[in-house]
Amino acid sequence: MSRLDSAIRRLQAQQLCLEWAASAVANRSGNAIELGLGNGRTFDHLRSLMPERPFYVFDRQIAAHPDCIPADDRIFLGDFRETLVAAKQALGQTVLLAHLDIGTGDKAASIALAAEIAPLVDGLLADDAVVVSDQPVILPRWTSAPLPEGIRPGRIHLYQIG
Amino acid sequence: MSRLDSAIRRLQAQQLCLEWAASAVANRSGNAIELGLGNGRTFDHLRSLMPERPFYVFDRQIAAHPDCIPADDRIFLGDFRETLVAAKQALGQTVLLAHLDIGTGDKAASIALAAEIAPLVDGLLADDAVVVSDQPVILPRWTSAPLPEGIRPGRIHLYQIG
Repeated sequence: MSRLDSAIRRLQAQQLCLEWAASAVANRSGNAIELGLGNGRTFDHLRSLMPERPFYVFDRQIAAHPDCIPADDRIFLGDFRETLVAAKQALGQTVLLAHLDIGTGDKAASIALAAEIAPLVDGLLADDAVVVSDQPVILPRWTSAPLPEGIRPGRIHLYQIG
Repeated sequence: MSRLDSAIRRLQAQQLCLEWAASAVANRSGNAIELGLGNGRTFDHLRSLMPERPFYVFDRQIAAHPDCIPADDRIFLGDFRETLVAAKQALGQTVLLAHLDIGTGDKAASIALAAEIAPLVDGLLADDAVVVSDQPVILPRWTSAPLPEGIRPGRIHLYQIG
């Protein structure tokens, strides 16, 4: 498989999993978060799926397309380990949907970062929340959910909480 | 359409058009070129489609994944306007397949760059060559070819030469 093939499958997997997650919580009110705004593609997709839901993003710096940058009061800017603590104060345990898109090219570092920050994300998650994550996470409340058909296991991860 | 949807369609359009181009010249020997190596995804896809064909890339700087960087003697590094002149000396009119992937976020600048360098690319192209281009080009020898089904007109451009 070429890197072009692989990129297409990765984006399609994100698309399918974000649609699964938005659908899973569609009938309940609560906040959404994304860790790793990046170029803003998945933020743009998620907000199109849930235009009414309050949606907060976390990143170290803003590098997204200008039309994919949320309002200032919806951005937690800085190190995840600090901003997730601040978010707990601001939001409590009100998050129904979380998208973790934190990986870099360095696989070991990405997994280690996920292990470090996932407990802080967990503190924000309401019962029956759902998580889409580019990294695998093992936590007591996080139960793996099956991937939509056609996605290679391990490419992306879905969790149901509580 | 979200930016995630749009990115998927753009990469799928590249995939389909590169496959069309590689197939169109499959039975003839000649060189291939790509202008704009970028992250190396389409280079990786094209070389998988035509592993035997000599394949030269042009870019201002190398920023590709380490496993998507061609050998030094297959890279023309620098301003296209200079390296295309050097390539004419080195390769003559031997190119059967060209992929132009030169666009930046600035649409007007991208079209202007294409207009400036396309005549230099034209000088490298053998009769019956094919071109896949992210920018529209108007030149006497370049005849638009129909896009594969499902691709929005204007998203990408195919040309047959001569």
